[in-house]
Amino acid sequence: MDPKEFRRIGHETVERIAQFYEQLAAQGLEQSDGTSGSTSSLGVPAPIPRIPVLSQVQPGYLATLIPSEAPETPEPWSAISSDIEQKIMPGITHWQSPNFFAFFPSNSSFPGILGEMYSAMFNSIGFNWQTSPAYTELEQIMCNWLAKAIGLGDAFLSSSTSSLTDGRPQLGGGIIQGSASEAIVVAIIAARQKMIDALKTDETDDAAMAVAGKLIAYGSTQTHSATKKGAMIAGVRFRALEVDPVTFSLHGETVTAAIQEDLANGLIPFYITATIGTTSSGAVDDIPGIVQAASEYNVWVNVDAAWAGSALVCAEYRHLLAGVDGVDSFSFNMHKWMLTNFDCSPMWVKNRKYLTNALSISPAFLRNAASSSGLITDYRDWQLPLGRRFRSLKIWFVVRTYGLEGIRAHIRKHIQQCIIFENHLLARPNLYKIVTQRSLALITFSIVPPSESKWSANDLTNAVCDAINADGEILVTHTVLNGVDVIRFVPGGTLTTDAHIVGACRVFDRVTAHVLSQ
Amino acid sequence: MDPKEFRRIGHETVERIAQFYEQLAAQGLEQSDGTSGSTSSLGVPAPIPRIPVLSQVQPGYLATLIPSEAPETPEPWSAISSDIEQKIMPGITHWQSPNFFAFFPSNSSFPGILGEMYSAMFNSIGFNWQTSPAYTELEQIMCNWLAKAIGLGDAFLSSSTSSLTDGRPQLGGGIIQGSASEAIVVAIIAARQKMIDALKTDETDDAAMAVAGKLIAYGSTQTHSATKKGAMIAGVRFRALEVDPVTFSLHGETVTAAIQEDLANGLIPFYITATIGTTSSGAVDDIPGIVQAASEYNVWVNVDAAWAGSALVCAEYRHLLAGVDGVDSFSFNMHKWMLTNFDCSPMWVKNRKYLTNALSISPAFLRNAASSSGLITDYRDWQLPLGRRFRSLKIWFVVRTYGLEGIRAHIRKHIQQCIIFENHLLARPNLYKIVTQRSLALITFSIVPPSESKWSANDLTNAVCDAINADGEILVTHTVLNGVDVIRFVPGGTLTTDAHIVGACRVFDRVTAHVLSQ
Repeated sequence: MDPKEFRRIGHETVERIAQFYEQLAAQGLEQSDGTSGSTSSLGVPAPIPRIPVLSQVQPGYLATLIPSEAPETPEPWSAISSDIEQKIMPGITHWQSPNFFAFFPSNSSFPGILGEMYSAMFNSIGFNWQTSPAYTELEQIMCNWLAKAIGLGDAFLSSSTSSLTDGRPQLGGGIIQGSASEAIVVAIIAARQKMIDALKTDETDDAAMAVAGKLIAYGSTQTHSATKKGAMIAGVRFRALEVDPVTFSLHGETVTAAIQEDLANGLIPFYITATIGTTSSGAVDDIPGIVQAASEYNVWVNVDAAWAGSALVCAEYRHLLAGVDGVDSFSFNMHKWMLTNFDCSPMWVKNRKYLTNALSISPAFLRNAASSSGLITDYRDWQLPLGRRFRSLKIWFVVRTYGLEGIRAHIRKHIQQCIIFENHLLARPNLYKIVTQRSLALITFSIVPPSESKWSANDLTNAVCDAINADGEILVTHTVLNGVDVIRFVPGGTLTTDAHIVGACRVFDRVTAHVLSQ
Repeated sequence: MDPKEFRRIGHETVERIAQFYEQLAAQGLEQSDGTSGSTSSLGVPAPIPRIPVLSQVQPGYLATLIPSEAPETPEPWSAISSDIEQKIMPGITHWQSPNFFAFFPSNSSFPGILGEMYSAMFNSIGFNWQTSPAYTELEQIMCNWLAKAIGLGDAFLSSSTSSLTDGRPQLGGGIIQGSASEAIVVAIIAARQKMIDALKTDETDDAAMAVAGKLIAYGSTQTHSATKKGAMIAGVRFRALEVDPVTFSLHGETVTAAIQEDLANGLIPFYITATIGTTSSGAVDDIPGIVQAASEYNVWVNVDAAWAGSALVCAEYRHLLAGVDGVDSFSFNMHKWMLTNFDCSPMWVKNRKYLTNALSISPAFLRNAASSSGLITDYRDWQLPLGRRFRSLKIWFVVRTYGLEGIRAHIRKHIQQCIIFENHLLARPNLYKIVTQRSLALITFSIVPPSESKWSANDLTNAVCDAINADGEILVTHTVLNGVDVIRFVPGGTLTTDAHIVGACRVFDRVTAHVLSQ
């Protein structure tokens, strides 16, 4: 493919991307008469095809459509682009649909897409400073921008590299990890090395293993599974602590009790994930209490604010950061709720040396004058893989295009939308029961079985959830809280308007009535 | 940014990408008179600016050019695009330059870029089958395409999901990891769990830790640092075994001796990385011998063919796969030498259950009917992070656009280019000494000090390497082999033509003469 052909196909692709988002924006504005029509962005009924949020294909669908061996000779782009529409599109679950209310949002935006295009253009592998200084330096500056924008303390900022020439040591700093899972693994590994270094009796592997074999990491029963998986990856013990049965948040006293119990049993507590905005219900752990409990025993506290972290750009939610000054590391996913295409998980640490102590390896072929001087940051020593993409570009594009004001408006819009939905539930107490109070833009609820109905609340809630997702108009996720089956509702799509929320309310009313009528 | 504005800026960006590659393609065709002019792709001298391969900025350059806080209000795209050119471009080390001969190549291509554009458009998070069936199924099919294209045995293929309805179990299969480093960590973790399960005396954490504390992973002194780092991440011991002093490859007998020695010392060998194409010199380990040594002790063999794996599309290099039928896992980086933008590291295993045993977690909020049925693959259980991008699209676009024939021509071109360079070295034995024989498209050499010169060979080689990289015309990497400092030369750029190799030869001659004249 030469530049001329790329120009033609590239322009075609830009058109397709714009159309894709126009079609999604016009999706599923369910009519007040209960039919599932669609309306164009101009408000005029238009023949826009209905795109189910949840892919409707069956397992194995694609193997019947695509050859089982690679072609020997080149194929024209027209064959490929036709296959995208005919074979790939039906197998997409549309996270960008304005009617996607499942899991957590996965914000795309046009400046985010442009960031991916420029990143693909450069296609350098910025594993150390020299392999593309702009990769490292823009990432440092963007992490500082974000840290300030969400109110993280100065301790998490990296000093500018230029200021280093006066010999001031850099302690804290930020990096963009690929995902919250990777941020958690990195924190666990840094914490493990810190504790091993503190307790080992000599420099042998045996001494290190004697400590490692006793280490235990904590989360709560509501902590994202990434912490348990992170402990599995690191090969350390893991314990899920009980949460408050009403708020589903983890208390400091629970942590203290667990630490004391495990110490008494000969184990070594070394790490805990505290969550701002749990996956199931958006609960916020008692971070001041956890920090107090952990600091007494030198336990590393990592805050996972994967989803809720974006809301911290708004001053009215800044109180959620209480206690964060005392934690060791913090991360959130810009790719969830801050208009930035996946993947983009900024992570900050208060002391970078614990990352590099745990993850740095410098063989001869990766050494160079700039790295050895200590003047620069080599991000390969802050993360699991060696190679890295130019992820900071999309942060730069998104934040400048929207401005912090625009990002705050985006967050507030979705929280307001969740309030619209909450009010719909509250107005129908015979139909819906709120199980956990709204946390930012997340609310959980169950369906109330009519009196003398054959249904249990759990079964009915699950049946309605399944019927709604099979219907394809909207998508939501199910979870279980203390034995209670609930539906999670989380508006957050870039394209989601208030009208889509009103439509979603109608879908719930309609499908619930339908399930009950069967 | 609305669709209309995205169209305008998107088209502008497509133009910029096309220009970027046109400008790079015309770079550094050094004139035969030794001046560093440039020539357009039409062969007509054109005023194309010289773009140094190695970024010429100083540490901290960007902090002086960019505000230290995010903007409150939106900025126009014109300000952003101007900043890309003025502030970012100088900080790029141009891995896409045809004169990049350092590290290993990082192949970009236009279909690869289109793959990133479509992936950014969908922006779904395909962590399990249901969250976008096309993500999972295209990835399975692409891994099968590639496995067949490079000659991996049937044991590494995944059966199509549709064929599963007859109850045939799926054993092997492929996944696209983000990087070879991640593939190695995943293999280490799977191998660790397999050995723990085999040896633990009961189901307690204590029993598992008793085994884990004795585990030792192997690589050679030439294995990529990702294996040592992988062992650090997994928290297991690591030992680098000695290689053949001439070929730099690891022998089976060395592995047997190490296993027996470590067993005698109470350790438990469980994992080894065998390399096809080491980073320093392109050495190929004795895989049949290593497999024989390892299989006797139930040690997991993982083949890292990160760079050289791409060459296996050519029948004439298929002999490098000897013994691979007996290994447990295999990976290579399409993003190095197979025209596919970073990141794209296909990995295959012979028994998928060892991955899922080590990495699977299924909390309620991630459960769904399709996953529970066992009919489908949930790739989150085959990798470190939860979320994943739609990486298989770019494989599909690249392989169909070039065809296997086109990909083979790409590989053969670079090997032929390395032969041109090798012949240049061979013709000047008083100036250059080949240290390791050419392996595919990689050769290492040192500079020969003139008799009665003040230079040692090592110092002179390093001085020439530094001077060449500072010059900016081409970029190469230095390494050390058995105490001998060498320059690695690896043609592999998508845009690299034979003329660029001839130009590189002239640069070496010119800079060496200059260094010697000082």
